[in-house]
Amino acid sequence: MPGWAARGEARVPRLTDAHTRTLKLTIAYDGTRFVGWQRQASGVSIQGLLEEALARFDQAPVAVQGAGRTDAGVHALGQVASVQMISTHPLDSVARGLNAGLPPDVRVIDIQEVAAGFHARFSARSKTYRYQVQRSVIASPFERGYVWHVPEALDVDAMRVAAHRLVGTHDFAAFQSTGSDTKGTVRTISQSVIGERAVEGWRESTAPLLVYEVSGDGFLRHMVRAIVGTLVEVGLGRRREASIAALLAGGSRSEAGVTAPAQGLFLVRVVYD
Amino acid sequence: MPGWAARGEARVPRLTDAHTRTLKLTIAYDGTRFVGWQRQASGVSIQGLLEEALARFDQAPVAVQGAGRTDAGVHALGQVASVQMISTHPLDSVARGLNAGLPPDVRVIDIQEVAAGFHARFSARSKTYRYQVQRSVIASPFERGYVWHVPEALDVDAMRVAAHRLVGTHDFAAFQSTGSDTKGTVRTISQSVIGERAVEGWRESTAPLLVYEVSGDGFLRHMVRAIVGTLVEVGLGRRREASIAALLAGGSRSEAGVTAPAQGLFLVRVVYD
Repeated sequence: MPGWAARGEARVPRLTDAHTRTLKLTIAYDGTRFVGWQRQASGVSIQGLLEEALARFDQAPVAVQGAGRTDAGVHALGQVASVQMISTHPLDSVARGLNAGLPPDVRVIDIQEVAAGFHARFSARSKTYRYQVQRSVIASPFERGYVWHVPEALDVDAMRVAAHRLVGTHDFAAFQSTGSDTKGTVRTISQSVIGERAVEGWRESTAPLLVYEVSGDGFLRHMVRAIVGTLVEVGLGRRREASIAALLAGGSRSEAGVTAPAQGLFLVRVVYD
Repeated sequence: MPGWAARGEARVPRLTDAHTRTLKLTIAYDGTRFVGWQRQASGVSIQGLLEEALARFDQAPVAVQGAGRTDAGVHALGQVASVQMISTHPLDSVARGLNAGLPPDVRVIDIQEVAAGFHARFSARSKTYRYQVQRSVIASPFERGYVWHVPEALDVDAMRVAAHRLVGTHDFAAFQSTGSDTKGTVRTISQSVIGERAVEGWRESTAPLLVYEVSGDGFLRHMVRAIVGTLVEVGLGRRREASIAALLAGGSRSEAGVTAPAQGLFLVRVVYD
């Protein structure tokens, strides 16, 4: 039953659940100072900041669902979140209001109304993550929060071959951290490639960043970082490329590589039907 | 008179001034958290950090001369410093030792022995600065410490024409902050251009960064930032491009534009004969 409630200067219709809008938010953030996407007992989370910023529009508690629960220190170029809102404010003024209420290291870059059943996590078809490795002897002061610095020589060709072995439907149990709450460990990887990007403004002699991009229908806890740790071990010659196949055929976590540092990882985009 | 002094594990020859080496250091730093290049009564300076790191090699107090005294918050891709050292350590081990002693937001990227008369500031023939303006409505969380965010529409063509007017030998008194300790205000600008660079990883619809690059034989205090503030006023239509000529012909500081924020500015390189 619609009603009205005073909300600052404006009076906003309060609608029943049947009248809520489902919104899809696309969010970029620099994860450096956060405890991660998800609300924690202490520390600042992106989910918590968004819920607080949304509370300016709706008095009712607003629960924000994220597509990927990025860990502490992990960044996002295009995280997606879904939320039910009562507010009937125009979407662009919601976006402006949210950004005004958020710190500058978190930005809502897009907002759309979607069908009622939409859920950022369960409706996602595919996610793409990126991981950056800086190979130069000297780490750039400007990239230090966004790369894993590996000054040793890397056999990038071997890493590319190893990366390609991950494409397809496999059991990724060996690349999953303990404590994962997912039941199955089979995932389908559609893209697993190593590219490069120049470090803008850094001296010309510096090697470009290695940029690993991986897309799939889902990722286990720490899976991308365990993959990157394994690929770097291949690049360093400490592990043969062929070991990837063994890991995918029933290997355990201890047989795969280290978990690469969080700061090199970006959630790039989430794709829906 | 050469002698020896215990210094950690190694014994290093202590030489008279006649036997010091003059070193040319090239340094990159993220200026975000510093009070600027120059030592101050309080706060952390890049000069101070370098002098402390160099003190590991020479017991004698080491004075570091910088080519440009960048302000608080200003960055450097290729600052140059000169220093007299007694230590005879190989240069690459000096570089490694300095970087081990410096925080990750300051890196020595090159070190060379040069002729005794070399002085980073007085021997410099030309310096190049870069200033980055982000034009998109939403500021990138990843660029926020390295740009001036100007979300309003900019007439970039008008800015380019205005920038070009600065090339040549002019009196830049109108672009100098009060409190400058330089006597003359005539400087020669050899390059003054506006380019663009894509914001890597940011959503595709985002406008690229405007990148202003200016080279000259010397710069007055806050000169580049006053130039950028003036160019942005031209871009916003608040000032005519023709006003640049008037500023260069005896204008006062109050007639030029605002001083653009420090965080968008980079000292790119310093050229010597």
